[in-house]
Amino acid sequence: MQKHLRLEDLQGYDRFTRANLINSLSGFKSASLIGTVNKNGEANLAIFSNIVHIGADPAFVGFLNRPLEAAPHTLSNIQETGSYTINHITAGIFPQAHQSSAKYPADISEFDAVGLTPLYREGILAPFVAESHVQYSLEVKQIITIELNGTFFVIGAIQEIFYPEEIQEEDGFLALEHAGSLCSLGTSAYYKTKRLGKLAYAKR
Amino acid sequence: MQKHLRLEDLQGYDRFTRANLINSLSGFKSASLIGTVNKNGEANLAIFSNIVHIGADPAFVGFLNRPLEAAPHTLSNIQETGSYTINHITAGIFPQAHQSSAKYPADISEFDAVGLTPLYREGILAPFVAESHVQYSLEVKQIITIELNGTFFVIGAIQEIFYPEEIQEEDGFLALEHAGSLCSLGTSAYYKTKRLGKLAYAKR
Repeated sequence: MQKHLRLEDLQGYDRFTRANLINSLSGFKSASLIGTVNKNGEANLAIFSNIVHIGADPAFVGFLNRPLEAAPHTLSNIQETGSYTINHITAGIFPQAHQSSAKYPADISEFDAVGLTPLYREGILAPFVAESHVQYSLEVKQIITIELNGTFFVIGAIQEIFYPEEIQEEDGFLALEHAGSLCSLGTSAYYKTKRLGKLAYAKR
Repeated sequence: MQKHLRLEDLQGYDRFTRANLINSLSGFKSASLIGTVNKNGEANLAIFSNIVHIGADPAFVGFLNRPLEAAPHTLSNIQETGSYTINHITAGIFPQAHQSSAKYPADISEFDAVGLTPLYREGILAPFVAESHVQYSLEVKQIITIELNGTFFVIGAIQEIFYPEEIQEEDGFLALEHAGSLCSLGTSAYYKTKRLGKLAYAKR
């Protein structure tokens, strides 16, 4: 049976039901952990899934950061240091990754709180997640404030990339399912994937 | 074996290999078709995967549109009419959905060209994809030009939502795997999903 909701129906939902519906409606997302440090070198780790490819040359990736009162630390650390890492979430760590969304004070490292291992690499300020199999570092290029609702669209330039060599196909494509990378849905559900097909570049 | 790429390694890749690598690196995405019409009512359909949840109240969704020379019609139609629909891609239609990424002239409807059915609903200018099981309509709120590379971040307000009633869980969440919604990776690969877990709201 098809359900049809209008804007006024949505407004009749309680806040949590509405958020669960709308968060899942826009589809499967890239389940990722963003690692940062503040100017004192204190580490922060937070889960993000609203991540988009912006361009390949230069290589730009964007993510959506919630309003400051809901999610302050990742954004302020990026503003302070310019540096962040994005780390894919695997089946082995999704409960810990999810737990990083709890509200910890700025002086608590979510790495310690949830039991994941910060991995520092020479020349890169922000920590990676050692348990993640696909990791990349970025330098922030632009932070766009979305005045409509106080969120932020953060654009970074990819600097260094780490992944298991064997997942890369001849055309450059990374078969992330072989690295165990998950996708997420809404704010609570985690999924593994199974490839149905990989199609050639579409021509008329 | 872990592979480590630096910016200068990326610059040594040919254009296609680099694009395949970077497009897949940012992870699984929401495989969707966006339906629009121009001011003469001519329909357009195009595949998009870089879709983000921006907020639940008001309900805003954003998508990334490539530079105008690569992807002109969806954006110009949205500018002309303000209206668009987002339709999830299922296993039954992913080859047709993929084919919509070919470069058709403005006067050709991709619905006809790829063999999908436009579904017009009262009060909504843009057509839905009849074969899609989860569909929603939007009114554009803001189009942000990303000067860094000439792409556009298009933000819309959700107006009406259609989905199979039986996929909705008690908390409002839509179990999209039961509607057959796929995710995509890079510009070419399509995946079904299998849930590993749905976790409670994380508390300290």
